[in-house]
Formats: sequence, structure tokens, C-alpha cells
Amino acid sequence: MDTGAMGTGADITIRYAREDDFPVLWPILRDVIRAGDTYTIEPGLTREAVRGLWMEAPRATCVAEIAGEVLGTYYIKTNQPGGGAHVCNCGYMVAPAARGRGIARAMCLHSQREARAMGYLAMQFNFVVETNRGAIALWETLGFDTVGHLPRAFRHPARGLVDARVMYKWLGD
Amino acid sequence: MDTGAMGTGADITIRYAREDDFPVLWPILRDVIRAGDTYTIEPGLTREAVRGLWMEAPRATCVAEIAGEVLGTYYIKTNQPGGGAHVCNCGYMVAPAARGRGIARAMCLHSQREARAMGYLAMQFNFVVETNRGAIALWETLGFDTVGHLPRAFRHPARGLVDARVMYKWLGD
Repeated sequence: MDTGAMGTGADITIRYAREDDFPVLWPILRDVIRAGDTYTIEPGLTREAVRGLWMEAPRATCVAEIAGEVLGTYYIKTNQPGGGAHVCNCGYMVAPAARGRGIARAMCLHSQREARAMGYLAMQFNFVVETNRGAIALWETLGFDTVGHLPRAFRHPARGLVDARVMYKWLGD
Repeated sequence: MDTGAMGTGADITIRYAREDDFPVLWPILRDVIRAGDTYTIEPGLTREAVRGLWMEAPRATCVAEIAGEVLGTYYIKTNQPGGGAHVCNCGYMVAPAARGRGIARAMCLHSQREARAMGYLAMQFNFVVETNRGAIALWETLGFDTVGHLPRAFRHPARGLVDARVMYKWLGD
């Protein structure tokens, strides 16, 4: 990892989330979910439902800190059970005020290392909204291929029906 | 629908499942799930877990009968919440001894009508295993496009890691 410059992730610490992180994570999760323009999560979900979705249902949840301040979070979970269980899925969220500092990039790199350590052979993003250009560009630089195009699969709150992508990266040898 | 000949579905009745259908559905579900070569369902799932997965979690579950005998079943559910909630997902299973009689075809056509009636605008199959050639050919004849290829995303019990497809059909105008 580079050192020093902003946006390289050099000052970012990533660790497993603790239960008492949720009060700090909640505003980040809430604002992304309420906006309803990037994730297929019901925008009106309650705080308790979001806690279950992000902190309890996944296999692991991490937080990203800069100077002790939690500014981002991601989860990792098995994407499909049974014969699909060697492929994981992750979701990432960054506090709006902290964007452009390399937090999503650092979290995605961290999640790939965690995924390999957990024994996963691939990572799949099931639903990357086409209008989320920054995310698409970032996942591409981090080695993800677009393996699917879902036509008009997302109802964007401002733009109406837009496409979504399936993105995928093989992590095994 | 054609009339008379076998394989056209003319003698197939499809109706909503009742709770007391489960004892008859269980052997069909069990055998497909235990085989572990088509669905991303944990092969060792208990009877009660399968009941929950197939009969309770979905928005609706239907059964297909010929001469009063239940030979197939499908579920319909919302594929993604929030901005993805206008796309549904279905899964279909047919008793091995009843294959080749047009039951899967009849169920898929029925599910498309049900989906439209429920207000869905599209139907997505998230994970069609590449070795399941019969299903792929059938979905293609019924208007589904392959919109995604998931490389080595399925561990087939006999063939090892094989690809899977994402298939999709727009149901709206």
C-alpha cells in the first residue's frame, strides 16, 4: 500500500466491527439506505432491521477508521448456499463526507484478503446499479469483471428504471 | 396451449399449494435438493428447513397436478427488495418420474402470468447451472435471455466447478 498521500488508504485502519460500533455506523448506513439509489435495500428499513441486516446476518462485518473515527463499513457473507458456497458477497458503505479518501478501495482490498482467509474462491457483487459509476470504476480497477447485465432491474429514485451489473472476481489460484 | 398430446401440458392443473400438500411435495423437493446438482440449496437441509424455504419464505407456492397427482411445484418471490422489487424470482421442481411431460414448461408459463398479475415487471433466474442443459433450453424457448455468466460459480457433485448463468425475461409492456 502507498504511504502518505491522501486517497491511497495509507492512514486507514480496518478491523472487525464490535456491537458497540453500531451507534456510529447507523448514520452511515441510514443515509445510504434512505437515499435508495445504490443498494437493493428497502429504503424505509428500521434501525433494528438494519442492525440485523448489516451486523448479524453476514458472516463478518468490518469497519474502517481514520484517526480513530469510523468512516466506512463492509460485510462479507456466503453468496449462495450448497454448491455455490465457495463464492462470497460483500457490501461496502462510506460516510458521504469521507468519500474520495480511498476508504472503499481499502475496504475492498481488505475484504478480498479476508475472503481468501475464510476459504472463498470468488467474490460476486450481485447488483451494482449502472448509475453508480464510481463504484463500477473502482471495482474494475480492483480486478472485478462485469459478468452480467440486468436490464431495467433497478428503480432509481430520480432516474426511473436503470440497468444493473453483476460483477465477479476469482480469488483462487 | 395445445390439446391432447403428452408433453404439451394440456392435462396439467396448476393451483396454489396448501399446507397439507407438503407431505406429497417433500419427496420431490428432497430428491432434487439431496442430489445437489441443480439448485444452490444446502443438500442436507432438514425437512422443516425445506418447508420454510419452499412453502413459507416465498410470496407464493404452487403445485402442478396430473389426474389429481402432485408432480411438480414452484415458488415465486421478490428477487431483491427496495429498488429491485419489481423483479421476481421463481424456482421449479418436477418429480423425476414425471419429467418429459411438459410440467416445468406449464409451471413456468403459469408463473409468468402470476408474476404479471402480482405487478412484477421482470423475472430473473439468479443461478442456472450450466450442466442443467434441459432447463436452459426450456427457459430459452420461453423467452428468457442469458444476461450473465458466472465462471466456476457452482461446485457440481460429479463434475467439480462449473459455470452458472443468470437468465432474465422482461414481463412488462
